[in-house]
Amino acid sequence: MNETSTDPHDNPLAKGAQARGDGQGIAVGAVPTERIEFGVMTFAETVPPGRGSVQVSCHERLQQVLAEARLADRAGLDIYGVGEHHRHDFAASAPAVILAAIAAHTSSIRLSSATTVLACTDPVRVFQDFSTLDLLSSGRAELIVGRGSFPEPYPLFGVDPAETDPVFGEKLDLLRQIRDHEFIEWTGRHRPPLTGQGVYPRPYQDRLPLWVAVSHNTHTARRAAVSGLPMILGLFAEDHHLHHLCETYRDHSTAAPRIAAQLQGLLADSAGEASRTFYRAYTSARRQTHPDAPPLTPAQFTHLCRPNGPLAVGTLDEVSAKITHLHHEFGITRFLLHISVGYLPHDVVLRAIELWAQLAHHVRTDIEIHAK
Amino acid sequence: MNETSTDPHDNPLAKGAQARGDGQGIAVGAVPTERIEFGVMTFAETVPPGRGSVQVSCHERLQQVLAEARLADRAGLDIYGVGEHHRHDFAASAPAVILAAIAAHTSSIRLSSATTVLACTDPVRVFQDFSTLDLLSSGRAELIVGRGSFPEPYPLFGVDPAETDPVFGEKLDLLRQIRDHEFIEWTGRHRPPLTGQGVYPRPYQDRLPLWVAVSHNTHTARRAAVSGLPMILGLFAEDHHLHHLCETYRDHSTAAPRIAAQLQGLLADSAGEASRTFYRAYTSARRQTHPDAPPLTPAQFTHLCRPNGPLAVGTLDEVSAKITHLHHEFGITRFLLHISVGYLPHDVVLRAIELWAQLAHHVRTDIEIHAK
Repeated sequence: MNETSTDPHDNPLAKGAQARGDGQGIAVGAVPTERIEFGVMTFAETVPPGRGSVQVSCHERLQQVLAEARLADRAGLDIYGVGEHHRHDFAASAPAVILAAIAAHTSSIRLSSATTVLACTDPVRVFQDFSTLDLLSSGRAELIVGRGSFPEPYPLFGVDPAETDPVFGEKLDLLRQIRDHEFIEWTGRHRPPLTGQGVYPRPYQDRLPLWVAVSHNTHTARRAAVSGLPMILGLFAEDHHLHHLCETYRDHSTAAPRIAAQLQGLLADSAGEASRTFYRAYTSARRQTHPDAPPLTPAQFTHLCRPNGPLAVGTLDEVSAKITHLHHEFGITRFLLHISVGYLPHDVVLRAIELWAQLAHHVRTDIEIHAK
Repeated sequence: MNETSTDPHDNPLAKGAQARGDGQGIAVGAVPTERIEFGVMTFAETVPPGRGSVQVSCHERLQQVLAEARLADRAGLDIYGVGEHHRHDFAASAPAVILAAIAAHTSSIRLSSATTVLACTDPVRVFQDFSTLDLLSSGRAELIVGRGSFPEPYPLFGVDPAETDPVFGEKLDLLRQIRDHEFIEWTGRHRPPLTGQGVYPRPYQDRLPLWVAVSHNTHTARRAAVSGLPMILGLFAEDHHLHHLCETYRDHSTAAPRIAAQLQGLLADSAGEASRTFYRAYTSARRQTHPDAPPLTPAQFTHLCRPNGPLAVGTLDEVSAKITHLHHEFGITRFLLHISVGYLPHDVVLRAIELWAQLAHHVRTDIEIHAK
């Protein structure tokens, strides 16, 4: 049933794995030799920043997402990610459906959820959706699963927020079993048992690539490590905590450790333009999500954008420096840029994707030269 | 959020509804004046008939499905349907994901599940999947929901087969509420309650078209009628029972009654070719589904293909006569042809789609002439 694998974790001849050497990954602070991957991601945000703007419909926004993914594919980026959200101001509650349309519009970019709120879904359905996507796209599907940082899915799907961790753990265990085996014997507390049924269709790749999203929680980093799964870090914590998460992950890894990062940010042709545009969108998104929080001041925003701060906002050179720093400091080998944090005009996002693809080329070349 | 409706049920200016007149539908035996719609459907079957054939992979089969849908769209057919199945010999457990890829490959054909096994799914997720499909396709999504005629989904999703009817009823009620209202207050036995949450994204059409699939069960026909929903009949019963189902449906309808039919069959350039090819595929599919049933003899098969029998197998003229009969006899105004019952070679299916599209044109012209 399966044909060829394009997952670097499975196929030693695939890109990335060629340079992985002993398969033991890299230590924090060392220079990794793995190919660095660059992608973009979206939640299909629909509410424009500021007052008096025209509301962008979900229909128009999804057509924009298709165009953004086409550009990302053409520009040679490695991954396009769609994050699951259940609010009126996001058009992406069903990432696999959106990614299937993107699959038909693109030829080589990998297609990932970013992130699937696993505690609120059935791992059987999640696997079937992404396995189908994998078949439709001839092996380009991936899954990022996490505990979710937004509150809406929990009451919508009847999951007790206090139970997030055990529910996530149980469902991750089941999803891994379904990924690795055709027939499943499984019993748990949060889903009816499986008594040897097969789960179909099986994917095009030998195994669907599966990542665990980690924002602050050390326990989730340890869970990813013990499960032998790669980890994608949301860069929302301070450096010392990111170091702690990476160390915990590497110390407990049962497979070659692999760390990706999800960054929020915007590249533009001038630093002022990037900063002004992203400040409006970012503060607007923050108000939507935390209406009672005090507004973010320009000074606080500038602090978040500092060279080793979490936001990747600026020119190609400025953001390149940040990416190179993150790569060397934490051994991160995959970067997903979340550009449209809060709605940004379509042309602004398209230009940022072009610049991000140029950055990918520059950073790869630069790191290869230094590694020699 | 919603823009324009392309659902003839919602938009009095849309195709079909123009000629519906008083909106009360048509009586059994009367000549309906509604535009007749023609579509094709598939379960993405992968096992070829007979021994010694090469196994068609799920990957290859889904690429064929994309090509079949493209041809159906180009040839002017009205609907392409994908049926949910959870067996190793079907590649379609996630219809919305497949239909989203089809949406990107087509421009005007409507995209439907055929059928969604509603008792085994969460109506919130089903709505989100098809609403997303609707946005991606600019208003071409539809849903056919039913109790499912295959046993696999029930143990896989932990639904007691003895509870099929109440679970289906409860979930249909919830799905209708989500379709018709943004915010939901709902309590049931088979899904956690909703306490005023919104379900997003909302579709492109004002309301997602929603059909109820009925094979033999009078109770389900009555449920469709009382719910004010159109009904799609699987033509597996004898004529007198089909009459009973249609009468029950019309007698209890709380909205303009509308009846579609799902037929199994194959059109080919010669009657012998259609019959020989479909016999092999049909008997092979029957063996897969009912391994202990006695084999279907050629005589029994011929009986099923008789002019008023359930299988639509033959030349364009032969099948035209059957469609015209079904239209006049039962007031059926939409026909979905399930061609690939059991795996059929790709070129055979493509030719059948071309002939079916020609038939659609002939039958429409013929009925319009007689209606004058």
